[in-house]
Amino acid sequence: MDRRECLCYLLMEPLNPSFAAEVERGFARQPIMNLIGARLSIVEPGVVEITLPYRADLAQQDGYLHAGIVTTIADSASGYAAYSLMPAGSAVLSVEFKVNLLRPAQGVTFVARAEVIKPGRTLTVVRADVFGIDGDGDRELVATMLSTMICLRDRE
Amino acid sequence: MDRRECLCYLLMEPLNPSFAAEVERGFARQPIMNLIGARLSIVEPGVVEITLPYRADLAQQDGYLHAGIVTTIADSASGYAAYSLMPAGSAVLSVEFKVNLLRPAQGVTFVARAEVIKPGRTLTVVRADVFGIDGDGDRELVATMLSTMICLRDRE
Amino acid sequence: MDRRECLCYLLMEPLNPSFAAEVERGFARQPIMNLIGARLSIVEPGVVEITLPYRADLAQQDGYLHAGIVTTIADSASGYAAYSLMPAGSAVLSVEFKVNLLRPAQGVTFVARAEVIKPGRTLTVVRADVFGIDGDGDRELVATMLSTMICLRDRE
Amino acid sequence: MDRRECLCYLLMEPLNPSFAAEVERGFARQPIMNLIGARLSIVEPGVVEITLPYRADLAQQDGYLHAGIVTTIADSASGYAAYSLMPAGSAVLSVEFKVNLLRPAQGVTFVARAEVIKPGRTLTVVRADVFGIDGDGDRELVATMLSTMICLRDRE
Repeated sequence: MDRRECLCYLLMEPLNPSFAAEVERGFARQPIMNLIGARLSIVEPGVVEITLPYRADLAQQDGYLHAGIVTTIADSASGYAAYSLMPAGSAVLSVEFKVNLLRPAQGVTFVARAEVIKPGRTLTVVRADVFGIDGDGDRELVATMLSTMICLRDRE
Repeated sequence: MDRRECLCYLLMEPLNPSFAAEVERGFARQPIMNLIGARLSIVEPGVVEITLPYRADLAQQDGYLHAGIVTTIADSASGYAAYSLMPAGSAVLSVEFKVNLLRPAQGVTFVARAEVIKPGRTLTVVRADVFGIDGDGDRELVATMLSTMICLRDRE
Repeated sequence: MDRRECLCYLLMEPLNPSFAAEVERGFARQPIMNLIGARLSIVEPGVVEITLPYRADLAQQDGYLHAGIVTTIADSASGYAAYSLMPAGSAVLSVEFKVNLLRPAQGVTFVARAEVIKPGRTLTVVRADVFGIDGDGDRELVATMLSTMICLRDRE
Repeated sequence: MDRRECLCYLLMEPLNPSFAAEVERGFARQPIMNLIGARLSIVEPGVVEITLPYRADLAQQDGYLHAGIVTTIADSASGYAAYSLMPAGSAVLSVEFKVNLLRPAQGVTFVARAEVIKPGRTLTVVRADVFGIDGDGDRELVATMLSTMICLRDRE
């Protein structure tokens, strides 16, 4: 299976040398991440992962993680993945996203992994997968997101 | 402006006479709705509204409601709007949704209003709008969702 | 059924007084519209309709209009609806769209009606519905699109 | 870069031993594929590619392949990729798709490559990428699609 997207990762040079510290600072300033108990687990140029331990109060009626919370971590990971490639002084906003819910969102932990597939001066397109991880560490793809992020400049 | 969707509302007869009570019971069993403080405000055949008072711990870094929480109420409203037209003994699951974030999600209260645009035996397509309402009661459209819901039968 | 989107139509003032002539000129320069036999039927500020007579060579294997052709007219209508509100000298490009296919696309004629739901300086969000119209003039909603368009400036 | 989707390809066993012949037969019965000049280039379990030589009459106003035609080949490739994993006697329909247009669609040839990311008894989720290939054989990703396909049974 050729993985042609890999081509673009080779070209993903961060324009902002302190991107990782800024992603971490931005994440710490998102109250919702604290409310649900999410944390940043990977911050690389064009790639961000957020980890969320399961909690019963984040569930829908059948005990699975609510699709909106699946989306919350996928959207945040996607925004930071886009942000990691933007110039210093930028801010990032979600323009839109689409989520396919592939399996019931079960697991003891969830990981949202976002990867930029097309960086751009104004718009960046990101793909994110959300995995449920069981007690043995086995992971299963529970949702996938395709999103558009916009770079706002001249802020800071 | 002709509003052609109105045509289909005329045909939306609930198959399950106790749909409203079941939507309310289902909603009460979603722990995430309690965590964020959302409540059902309208339950009609093919139309459901969920209301969410703003809270600072639901925000992203700029103080706006996080896109994932906007999605959480839009997705739940959409699922219940679809469910309201399904036969007794059904369950509903989100297949996929797409959200466009139109403006910063600010307001003292948010309302997600979902309307079925195409009911179906297996799949139902729903549109949901999320409004931010300010202290004067003025509402502004902050996001719109287009989603697909699936009916699972023979449950109870 | 309150139709809250109507609020925004009241505010849709064209910035480019010759928008209608420019939409028509742009449409005439799209070879694909000629190949499939589509024509512009309505051009108003924020609203554009494209009409397409059915032809057997535009069909998929069951004789229905192919989803890609449904998309072709919905995307073009959406782009021009967005363009109608942009300043003179702009160009418009599709960023992304999502289409739900609601019923088999049958009819003797198809109409794609696009309406801007959120104009913006850079990004414009548009909704489009595609109707199949039978020999008696009855119309049925066969697909709905939600799209994002981008304004490129300083062209011409 | 770990490519976790590869995991699922290992499990993609075709249920219909004559899937390849049926995909080819189905493709030949789609008049639109003949109109635009598309042909099947790869048919494997869960993976289908469609190739389309550029033609000026498929273009939008700037000479690029129209987004609707990009969608036409991506949607057909996705439908057949889903179909390749369905049992004999099935039919496939597109439920919905979302397309991000990443770059101007230029090339002497275009290839839409679709890969199933989640097969299912009723619904199958597919990702498709569309590449523009220049005269030197260099390929560039111009669009990506995420779609949901439904299996209709007991046909033939």
